[in-house]
This record gives sequence, structure tokens and C-alpha cells, in this order.
Amino acid sequence: MAPKKGLMQRLDEGVVIGDGGFVFALEKRGYVKAGPWTPEAVIEHPEAVRQLHREFLRAGSDVMQAFTFYASDDKLANRGNESSKKYTCRGVNDAACRLAREVAEEGDGLMAGGLSQTPTYLSGLGKAKTQKEFQNQVDVFVENKVDFLIAEYFEHIEEMEWAVEVCVKSGLPVVASMCIGPDGDMHGVTAGECGVRMAKAGAHVVGINCHFDPFVTLDGMRKMKTALDEAGLKVHMIAQPLAFHTPDAGKQGFIDLPEFPFGLEPRICTRWDMHRYAREAYEIGIRFIGGCCGFEAYHIRAVAEELEKERGILPKGSEKHEQWAGGLKMHTKPWVRARAGRDYWENIKPSSGRPYCACMSKPDAWGVTAGHSDLKQKTMRTTDDEIKALQQKKK
Amino acid sequence: MAPKKGLMQRLDEGVVIGDGGFVFALEKRGYVKAGPWTPEAVIEHPEAVRQLHREFLRAGSDVMQAFTFYASDDKLANRGNESSKKYTCRGVNDAACRLAREVAEEGDGLMAGGLSQTPTYLSGLGKAKTQKEFQNQVDVFVENKVDFLIAEYFEHIEEMEWAVEVCVKSGLPVVASMCIGPDGDMHGVTAGECGVRMAKAGAHVVGINCHFDPFVTLDGMRKMKTALDEAGLKVHMIAQPLAFHTPDAGKQGFIDLPEFPFGLEPRICTRWDMHRYAREAYEIGIRFIGGCCGFEAYHIRAVAEELEKERGILPKGSEKHEQWAGGLKMHTKPWVRARAGRDYWENIKPSSGRPYCACMSKPDAWGVTAGHSDLKQKTMRTTDDEIKALQQKKK
Amino acid sequence: MAPKKGLMQRLDEGVVIGDGGFVFALEKRGYVKAGPWTPEAVIEHPEAVRQLHREFLRAGSDVMQAFTFYASDDKLANRGNESSKKYTCRGVNDAACRLAREVAEEGDGLMAGGLSQTPTYLSGLGKAKTQKEFQNQVDVFVENKVDFLIAEYFEHIEEMEWAVEVCVKSGLPVVASMCIGPDGDMHGVTAGECGVRMAKAGAHVVGINCHFDPFVTLDGMRKMKTALDEAGLKVHMIAQPLAFHTPDAGKQGFIDLPEFPFGLEPRICTRWDMHRYAREAYEIGIRFIGGCCGFEAYHIRAVAEELEKERGILPKGSEKHEQWAGGLKMHTKPWVRARAGRDYWENIKPSSGRPYCACMSKPDAWGVTAGHSDLKQKTMRTTDDEIKALQQKKK
Amino acid sequence: MAPKKGLMQRLDEGVVIGDGGFVFALEKRGYVKAGPWTPEAVIEHPEAVRQLHREFLRAGSDVMQAFTFYASDDKLANRGNESSKKYTCRGVNDAACRLAREVAEEGDGLMAGGLSQTPTYLSGLGKAKTQKEFQNQVDVFVENKVDFLIAEYFEHIEEMEWAVEVCVKSGLPVVASMCIGPDGDMHGVTAGECGVRMAKAGAHVVGINCHFDPFVTLDGMRKMKTALDEAGLKVHMIAQPLAFHTPDAGKQGFIDLPEFPFGLEPRICTRWDMHRYAREAYEIGIRFIGGCCGFEAYHIRAVAEELEKERGILPKGSEKHEQWAGGLKMHTKPWVRARAGRDYWENIKPSSGRPYCACMSKPDAWGVTAGHSDLKQKTMRTTDDEIKALQQKKK
Repeated sequence: MAPKKGLMQRLDEGVVIGDGGFVFALEKRGYVKAGPWTPEAVIEHPEAVRQLHREFLRAGSDVMQAFTFYASDDKLANRGNESSKKYTCRGVNDAACRLAREVAEEGDGLMAGGLSQTPTYLSGLGKAKTQKEFQNQVDVFVENKVDFLIAEYFEHIEEMEWAVEVCVKSGLPVVASMCIGPDGDMHGVTAGECGVRMAKAGAHVVGINCHFDPFVTLDGMRKMKTALDEAGLKVHMIAQPLAFHTPDAGKQGFIDLPEFPFGLEPRICTRWDMHRYAREAYEIGIRFIGGCCGFEAYHIRAVAEELEKERGILPKGSEKHEQWAGGLKMHTKPWVRARAGRDYWENIKPSSGRPYCACMSKPDAWGVTAGHSDLKQKTMRTTDDEIKALQQKKK
Repeated sequence: MAPKKGLMQRLDEGVVIGDGGFVFALEKRGYVKAGPWTPEAVIEHPEAVRQLHREFLRAGSDVMQAFTFYASDDKLANRGNESSKKYTCRGVNDAACRLAREVAEEGDGLMAGGLSQTPTYLSGLGKAKTQKEFQNQVDVFVENKVDFLIAEYFEHIEEMEWAVEVCVKSGLPVVASMCIGPDGDMHGVTAGECGVRMAKAGAHVVGINCHFDPFVTLDGMRKMKTALDEAGLKVHMIAQPLAFHTPDAGKQGFIDLPEFPFGLEPRICTRWDMHRYAREAYEIGIRFIGGCCGFEAYHIRAVAEELEKERGILPKGSEKHEQWAGGLKMHTKPWVRARAGRDYWENIKPSSGRPYCACMSKPDAWGVTAGHSDLKQKTMRTTDDEIKALQQKKK
Repeated sequence: MAPKKGLMQRLDEGVVIGDGGFVFALEKRGYVKAGPWTPEAVIEHPEAVRQLHREFLRAGSDVMQAFTFYASDDKLANRGNESSKKYTCRGVNDAACRLAREVAEEGDGLMAGGLSQTPTYLSGLGKAKTQKEFQNQVDVFVENKVDFLIAEYFEHIEEMEWAVEVCVKSGLPVVASMCIGPDGDMHGVTAGECGVRMAKAGAHVVGINCHFDPFVTLDGMRKMKTALDEAGLKVHMIAQPLAFHTPDAGKQGFIDLPEFPFGLEPRICTRWDMHRYAREAYEIGIRFIGGCCGFEAYHIRAVAEELEKERGILPKGSEKHEQWAGGLKMHTKPWVRARAGRDYWENIKPSSGRPYCACMSKPDAWGVTAGHSDLKQKTMRTTDDEIKALQQKKK
Repeated sequence: MAPKKGLMQRLDEGVVIGDGGFVFALEKRGYVKAGPWTPEAVIEHPEAVRQLHREFLRAGSDVMQAFTFYASDDKLANRGNESSKKYTCRGVNDAACRLAREVAEEGDGLMAGGLSQTPTYLSGLGKAKTQKEFQNQVDVFVENKVDFLIAEYFEHIEEMEWAVEVCVKSGLPVVASMCIGPDGDMHGVTAGECGVRMAKAGAHVVGINCHFDPFVTLDGMRKMKTALDEAGLKVHMIAQPLAFHTPDAGKQGFIDLPEFPFGLEPRICTRWDMHRYAREAYEIGIRFIGGCCGFEAYHIRAVAEELEKERGILPKGSEKHEQWAGGLKMHTKPWVRARAGRDYWENIKPSSGRPYCACMSKPDAWGVTAGHSDLKQKTMRTTDDEIKALQQKKK
């Protein structure tokens, strides 16, 4: 049996499909708490995490990303999160790696460990302390022999560079992906410049994840592509956007939308949106195409189905999904059978069924970022008075 | 250890929370094919079905409904569905019962077997043949010692009466639930009259499931309640609506909406919608409160949280969900922390992020129902020419 | 020269087209004050009123309705309205009649005097006092030799019957038109019953005006038609709806909508809506087809163009309007020329350009009506404290 | 009696309020044909044009702009427009000037003659022929002693420069206003550069009119202001936007929207939009503030009321309009009286009442402009076959 191909070889030869979002899916299933968003479910409910990995594998994901989001020690202890009393960064990351590895081996999947932005950075505690948080996670990833590292969900290019610096030392392939839109990072660095700086820091794959919908994200990627080309930098590109429509999200993304995180339902993308996303991403030249929050298995399957020709295969999950709604030919009702066909679904403009709601929202846009006192790490739970003060600020 | 309380006792003493929808959830996860919608996943991927049962149990469901939807022999063989070549009605129903029983025993759950409308009836093949299909399923349910039977998703009161007749002979409690709205069944029988006829046929619990959103469904239930009261019938009531907003669905429900089944995302209800649903259902006097297509674990959890006081307990899943968004107090971003509170979420009007889409759709309304040739059972797969002819009809 | 045909003969022979709304049009032009809505402009700015009459005549109106809306003595003096200090009911009604007559004679138009609901009735002052207000106006109309009387914009069938009683004594044809929707009058009398009672009171033409959009109004008219048929009453019918879309208006019409009266713009009907309105009204059997608030000349012209075949003529104003957008063939830009054609405009779904606004509003629905203290006639201007108390009530 | 102050003095001392749109208003009233849009109404129906001028004067307009839009000889004869058979450029412009002068003298108004883009330019016939068209109009304006000239509704800076060149020779103050948005002219010249080139060509006042809503227009004006400042050019600025919301209009403005020109109703701005517009325009430093298509008297009145303090006066029309909905204190219904107040109307988000329509449209964007064969002057009426060919192109 031939050894498994690595990430870089796969990207050079074709398309790598990422997986979808874990925190939102597992929150809805009952295993993750919105607010802290920490991944202790890998220890508490491994069967639930394993099942979600399997759904993505079946849907066509080539990558099992260990569920290590926000699993740095500082985050596990932030603002009254009790996870740190029960679990350590090491324990969580280790369990996450083992689950991801287990499912990856059920197919031909790669397995990756991930880092993301830290409260330490937001609190302004400096490079050394921030890198220590990263190093703690990377150590576990290396021990677990992950296939590559992914530094994602960074809002500030500075913190990202610090993360990439730590990752590069491991000798593993490094994917670097910021949660920014076409307007660039929180400190005013353009999307193009972010791409260039990630590449120069040593990342092998650079791009954007989370915070914006597929189409806003690709607008950002076009800018990054242009800047990379102009700088003569040859790196691969990744996109892992939200599966929520966010044309109105402003600079900081869906976090700023009033619907975040408990009223985003009407924004959920259809599978047909994902066909379009996959095609446009591919045409830009992006070869690592996945998803973030909101992306469920059927969204990933749509990406895989759109790229069937390019990849030469269909995912297993397509056993239960004839392309472009072909399964509707078996529907009992004749007017639903009449909907079997690409033309119908490619052009649908789905209604919300909510005539008392608008189409777009005004984002909160407080304009505070790294270093601001409201953003500082704090182990105590936020008090009711503090919440009231914030609500007052909002008005 | 005291013996488990049965359905009727539980309803008399308080509230029974149903589970959510299996076909839509498992379609998105990759285990059910939209179109035929048959439940062979219970054999092919038991771990996926088991996981979904567990999510509902954890979210507060008191009932594990065996995943036997559309698992009659005629449906497994309809319009080119290949399930009938591999599996039998008996095999599928048996496997489904065992999975549901297994998870029910992980908690204090009841387990139910379910029947639904048949192609045989729609094809106009008469009472004897239709009841034979039902009997085949009920036999398996009785062998598996289900706690009660549920006849649901019937569009015609006549077929429902035939189903209840079969169920009642088993001696088990019988729940009867039609997929109708306030305008009544497909043959013009009012919602109120449907309720009365189900009760007179011997059902112990009567109500409405699927096809309409919670609030349209409750409008139908109010009519049913009035008719039952006027007829002096003392039965319990059940509601298991969609988790999709359908103010525009016409008489036949979401099937008629152009977005069915692959563009319903913008219609998905929030958890806050479900708080309102649970409260209103309870106030009408409904004591079996659950969900159907689109209902995921977090929707059921919202029902359970809204009825915490009435039930005296919170579900296990609420470990990961502080009521009314309390978890946001732990969010990193101060403007998100400011959203922690009931007032904020109770009044949110979530935007769709889709400014090029309307709020409401015109339903297809072909007006064909049981007996019409387009609805007849047919084992061959629909041809492309037949699809074209239907599409022509649509225009 | 043959004598002018009267209203009843015209209705028997074909279609009579009414005019549009004066208060809203003249408010926008600067001659009527929103709030009191009284028509002293007939004295203060006769040229502006005359011009509006002419626009309707040119657009195809067969009827010049004297601008006497709310011109009863009690209304001119209500809540701080200073009109009563300068003008009398007699003076205003007389001037209005002369203007309407003048323009009617420029064409083949009929001229009508109108009555509407009174503060006296709303204050619960009884039949005698209410009828005195009506008689004062009718006296002026008779002196001015109006061609017929129109009692319109009544919310209560009781007050309407009193008005018709006064009108009938004049010996003139009497048109009776209530501002109700399909749900009937403010005291719970059905739309059908309202129609029957107006006819029985002696009205020659009965129907609905104002408060609802053309299509809601026609829903009401269908009910009225059915009731009239069932009662065996042979009278003509009139519809004069709003030119604002009001699917969400509740029972009391657009007054209850939060946008009333200064934010109704996005609800304004297109000319193409009026084609559909005219066709549907005609098919119901309505032969007096006009408009109320929001109806401008081009809306009336659309009615006349839709009914060109039935009436055998086009209005003068169609010199400047080729049917179904034919004039666009002369447009400079080719993509606008491509819009010349019925198919394009008949199917357009016009966007609002307001992505931060919803499609429907929740109406205020205070449920107070005739007799309630908040509705009583009051000559003093409302104080700021009274306004604050009302705003408090609103919450 | 002191001599009337001229335009430049008024601008130096305070704010000049322009008038609103004539072609759209008079099309609705029945005097202008949509498509050719030519102003022969000044001869055919002077009383209708005079009345509209008076409404604007009464609403607070300081400028009576002669209704000479598109009244160049070439436009009067374009694509089957029969106006040229009856009227000449000279005759139309002369009549327009006399009407505007008459009403201007009823108040303290200035009177202006206007030029706009020509078919000659679009046909690529060159500078000499294009300027000849302009000169023909300017000659009439000079004879009629207009107070200033206004070159407006130009899509190409080149044609605008040719127009300004002609105007400047007259020795009159010259206002230059392009129908562009923030993206600049049709040949790719930025908004800022357009402003600079108009000023350098000799215009005394420069700015933007038509094609976009007030807020998109002001975005363009901000760019123009910056460029003028950077170039050290001291000129006054003008804004005369649409009264239609056009956030979705693309580069060529509302012409490209599918609703143009017969389905724009849901986009009509409220008076409260105009308060905001006036305030923002003033804050940018714009001192000539008016409106274009869709602007009616009540919109201009809102501008005047917002700037009451800056101008020291209220318009006559405010006799019938208490600021910020004060008149509602006199309304019969208490819940409407509760709406009397600034807070209510300043924050209203008006619903469209059209749940089957979207909020935004995709503009046609053919990308053809001056020189393209489809845009060439043509005296023959467009044939049905030509229309069909264009419709085909559209798909």
C-alpha cells in the first residue's frame, strides 16, 4: 500500500476539500456552549464529535481537522468558563487529535491540528506569552503526528505572524487563514497585505476563514491573490467561509451582526450556494476549499459534487444525493418531481417566510480591538452590572 | 425500581416532549435520500441514527420515535427507489425499533412505532390493501413491544381512520396526527372535523404534525380543540410542527412551496421561535409537544427550557446552554456580551442576508390529490420525458 | 345637444370611472394638513384643487367628486383645527361644488357631493345631532345641483344608515361606500351584511372605499356581492380603494399601520397593479370603479386603459401614455427600449431599495371605536401631556 | 425695492433650495410621455406646468428651473417622437422660460434655463454639432434673461465640458451637474476628477443630479469635495438627487434598474429621508440643495424645514405642515395622535406591503455608452423587430 499523500502534494495535484464547522453544529446538537465555544466535548462526548467527523468524511472532506478550536489554556479559563477546572489544554488537544486521526483513517483523510486567536493577545500581553499559548498546542499536535498545522481565525496579522512563526518550527506544512473580509484586518492592514505577510512568515497555504459568507470571502481572496501575484509569492490558497449570508456584516464579520449567534438561521446558505462557491473558488485558483461555522455535511458534499470532474470522484455521501436534485424524480407528488433539475435550483431565490423581518441588519461596529480594556482576558464571570453597562454602551 | 410510566399517565400528569425530525436532519448528514425519503439508514448506518436519537434525548425528548417513516413495502418500492431490492418493510421497521429502544433505555424515554400515508391509498387501491400495509408495520411494532403507536403524516382523514382502526386492535395507546393546516384535509374535511373523527375512530391523542410552521399548526389546533370540546370528546392533543416558517404555504403545506425541499434554509425557525411555540401550545392545552421536519436538538431543548417550570426539570443538554443566552456573558467581544438577556432575543427580528430574495412565495397548488393519476404508485423510475411533461404542466 | 346621461343610466350601460384621492395628493402638494385633513383648500387655493380635478378628468374619470371630505362643521372645529375660525361648512362645501362643476363641464363629467363619518357620531352624541351635520352638507349639495350624492368613508353601518336616510330624502341617486375590509365594520357587522343594510337603507350603489388596497377591498366586495345576491337585492356596486398595498392592515385599515400617514411611500401601487384591479373589479360585476387616498391621475388612467374595450374610449391623458409601456420604444437607452411590452410590466415584482426595512408591519389595533372616550370630539388642541399619555398607552 | 439677489450672492450668504423633478411628476399627472420625456407640455398645458412650479415655490424652492429638459432639436425628433413635427426647440424653450419667470416673480425666486445630454453626442457626431444643439437653447435662455444657466444630467464629462464652454460665453453664472454616482462617469472618469474638470471648465457651481438616491449621491459628492479641495478649487456645490432609493443601482443609476420607469413606487423616499438628506448635504458644505426625478413639493418642503434655522425662514407650504408630524395631534384616532413626534418618524423603517417582492434588484448593466450603435440618434420609431432583438440581447 502506497503511503498517504501529504497536503502539499495533494494541493499541487488537485483540490483538497476541507471540512465544515464544529462549534455551531455541536452547539445545536447540545455539546458545545455558545459564548465560550470551547471544545471539551472531545472528552465529554467523543461519540458526538466522532460522528460529526464521519459526516464530513462521508461528504467528501479530505481533511479531518482536530476539534481544538479555542483550546488554549487562556481561553479555557476566560470569563467564568469552568472548562479549565476540569480539563487542560493538553488533555483537550490530545483527545481531539485522537478522534480526528481515528476517522481520518477510516478514509484517505489527512488530519490537522489547529490554533486560533488568543485572549492573551487581545489582552495586550505581548509576543512571548502569546507564543507560549501556541507552543503548548503545537507540542500536542506534534506528539500526535498531525499531517499539517492550521493557524486560523486570526483577526490581526501580527498575532498570525507570531502563530506561523511557532508553527513553522515544527517542520510541518503550515496553513494560515485569517477571519477577515475584503477590508482587511482589525488594525487596518489590507487583505492583500495580510496574504503577503502570511506567506513571508513562512505559511505554505494562505487564505481566509470564518466571519463572512462565501462570496464576501472570495472578494477578499481575489484581493489576496492579486497581492500575492504582485509580490511574486508562490503559495497555495485556502478558503473556509461561513455558511451564513453576510452582505451586511461590516468589517468584523458576523460577530457584529445582531443575529449572532442565536438568530442566524435565515442566513444559512443552501447547497446551491455552495455549488457556486466551489466553482468560483476553483476559478480564482484556490485549491484548499472548505467551510467554517454553519457548514454542515451537505454543504461540503455540494462542494465535492461541484468539483466532481476536477477531482475525478464523488463522495460516499452522494449515494444518498443524486446531483442537482435528481432524487426528486422519486417524489410522490408530481409538482415536486417537476423540480428535479439543475435549472430550477440554480435559479431559485428562496423566500424567508418572515415578512416582518428585514433582509439586512446594521452591524454593531464598536471599533474596539486588541488592547482595548473591554477585550481583556478575565477569569471571573461577567457580572450582571457589567452586562448592563455594556448594554447601555450599545445604545 | 418503579416501572416506567406509560404515555397516557404522563400526559395526564404533565407534559410529554416529542422528538424532532429525522428525514431532514439525516438527509443533511448524508444518510437519507430526499425524494424517496425512506429510512433504510437504520440498517445501513445505525450509528448515525442512534446519535440523532441521543441528541433528542439529551435535549429533553421523552419519546424516541422509531425511524420508520415511509417504511411501508409499497413506499420502499415506489418510483425506482432501490431500497426494496435490499430491504424489507419488516427488516427496516425491526432495526428502527431496536435503535429507538436502545436509546430510550439510556434515559427515561418511551419508544413508539409510527405509520404514515401510503402510496397504496394515493393510488386508490382501497381499504383492504391499504390496511395490509399498515398491519405489516404494526406487527413488527408489537413484536418489539413499543410503548405506543403513532399514526402521523396523513393528508386524508379517511386513510387516517383506516390506520387508527388497525392500530387500535393492538391494544396499545394510539396517537393520531395529520399533516394538515387550519384549512383541513385534502378532501375538504375541516381541521375540527378531522380531530373529531380521529377521536371517534379510537385515537387516544389527536393532533397535527409536519407541513406547517408552529404557529400555523397551532391555528389548526385551536380549531381542532374547539371542535373536540363542542363534541364533548375528552382526548389528549399533540402538535409536532415543522421548524420552517410557512405563512405562505397554502393548503398542502411546505411541499407546495417552491423552496421544498432544497431551499428551505431561510425559513428555519430560531430557538426563540420555539420558546413561543411551546408556551402557546401549552396554553391551548396541548400536552404532547414535539417537532417534525427541521426540528433539531436545539429546537427541542428550547421547548424543554420554556416548560422547565411545568415539567420541573431541565434537560441534560442545558448543561451547554444557559437559558436566554446567558452563555454570552462569557463571550470575548463586549458587544456580544451585551446580547446576553431575554429581552434581546425575545424581540429579535432576524434578517435573511438575502436582499435579492422575497419574504413569501406563491405555493404550487395543483389541487390534485388521492385518486389522481399523477399520484399513483409506480415502481419504475420516472423518465426524463415524464419530468419534462410535469414541468410543462407547471407553467 | 343631448342632455348629459345620469349616473344610473351610465352604470346600467357600462362602466363609470371615479376619481382618485384628494387629501393625500393635496397634502403632498402643500394645500392640505395631515391630521385634520380638512378641505379648506377649495377656498384658499382653488387653482390647486381645480388642477387636480382636471388631471383626473384627463385621466378618464367620469365623476368629479366635490372636495368636501370631512367638511362637516364638527370636523372643521375638532382638536384645535383652526379652519372653523375662518370657514364654515356651508362656505367650504359651496366652493368645492363650484370647482367640481366647473371641471366636470370641461368634459362629460358628472359631479357629486360627498359626506363622511363625523366626530359627532364617534362622540356618541346620537342620531339627531349626527344627521344635522349631514343635512347641513346635503343642503349645499342640493343647492349646487349635484348629479348625485356619495356617502363614503363610514366605519360603522349605523352611522352610514343615518347618512343614507338623509341623502335619500334629496331624491338624488345615492352612492354608499364604507371604509371596511373583508372583516366588516368596527362594531362587528360583516361586510356582506353592511352591503345589504346600505341597499335596504335606500342606497342605489353600494360598496367600499379607502382603508385597504385594491385587492383586499375586492375581497370585501366579493363578500358584499354574495350577500346582496343572497338577499335578492339589485343594486350597483362601487369600489374606491387605496393605492397603497395593505395586506397587513388588520381590521381598521391603513390608519392602523405604523407608516400612516407619513411613511406609506413604499406601499404605493404601480399602474400595473391598477390594471389588475380594474379587471378584477369588472369581473366581479362592479361598475363604479375609482380610487381613494394615494390614487393619482396615472392610476385612474390605468383603470381607463384596462377598460378601453368595455368603455369604447381611451382617456385624453393616454395621448401621453402608450399602453403597456409602448412609449419606451422611444427611449434613448437600448436596455430600456427592451422593456417596452406588456409581458415585462405585467410580471414585474418591484423592489423597494430598502434592505433594512421589512415587507409587512404589525398594525396598531387598539380596538377602540365609537363611544370610546379617546375618540370624542374636542375643540381644544391636544396637549403634549395628552400625547405622552397616548404614547405610553401604545407601549 | 432692493434688486433681487443673484445666485452667487445667495450661495455665499446661505442655502439655495432647488426645485424637484418635472418629468416624473408631469408624467403621472398626464402631461409628459415616458420614453421620449420631452417637455412640450409647456406649450400644450401651461396651466399644469405653472401649477407644479407654484407647488415648488410654495414648498420653499428658491429656483424655478424652466422645464426645458431634453428640449434640444435632436431629442425632440429622436426615435419617432412626434414633438418635433409640432414644436421647435426655440418654441419649447421660450414657453418654458416664460412660465418659470412668471412663477418666480410670484415669490423671490430665481429662474434658470437648463441644458442636458444630447443624442448628438451619444451618436458620436462630434463637438461642433453637439455644441450647436446647446447654443440653440442658450440663445433662448439669454433672450429670456434667465438668472443663471444649469448644465445637468450629463453622463460624460467630455460632453459636459463642451456644454459648460457654451454656457460660460453667455456671461451668466453656470451650474454644472452630472448624473453620476461615486463610481464616476460612463467613460471611467472618477467622480472627483469630474468635479475638478467641471470647475476648470468654468462652472461656478458643480455637483451631481439625478440617477441615484440622496445618500448614494452624497457619497459621490464627498468624493468630489475631496478632489476639489485637493485641487485647491473654490467653487460652490450642488446636489439634486432622485427621490428613489437606489442602493442597488450599479454605475449607470436608476435607468439600469428593472423597475425604471414604471415600477419605482416602492423606492420613493419619505419626507423623513429628505430631512436626513438636507442635513448631510449641508454638513458636507453643499449650498445648492434640490431634487430631481421623484422629488415632489413635500420633499422640497422637508428640505426647507430641516434647514429652517440655517435659512431663517419656513416656506409658505409649512402652513399646512407642522414640523415632525405635529399635525397628527389633531387626528381623530388616538393611536395616530400618539405618532405625533420626531422620535417616531425619524426612526421609522417603512414596510413595503409587498411580501412577494425582494428589496434589491440586479441592474441591467449592458456597459454600452457614447459611440455604441445601439445608442445612436435615429428619427424613425423603433420597430417591433428591433425591440425583439433587444429583448433577446437582454437574456
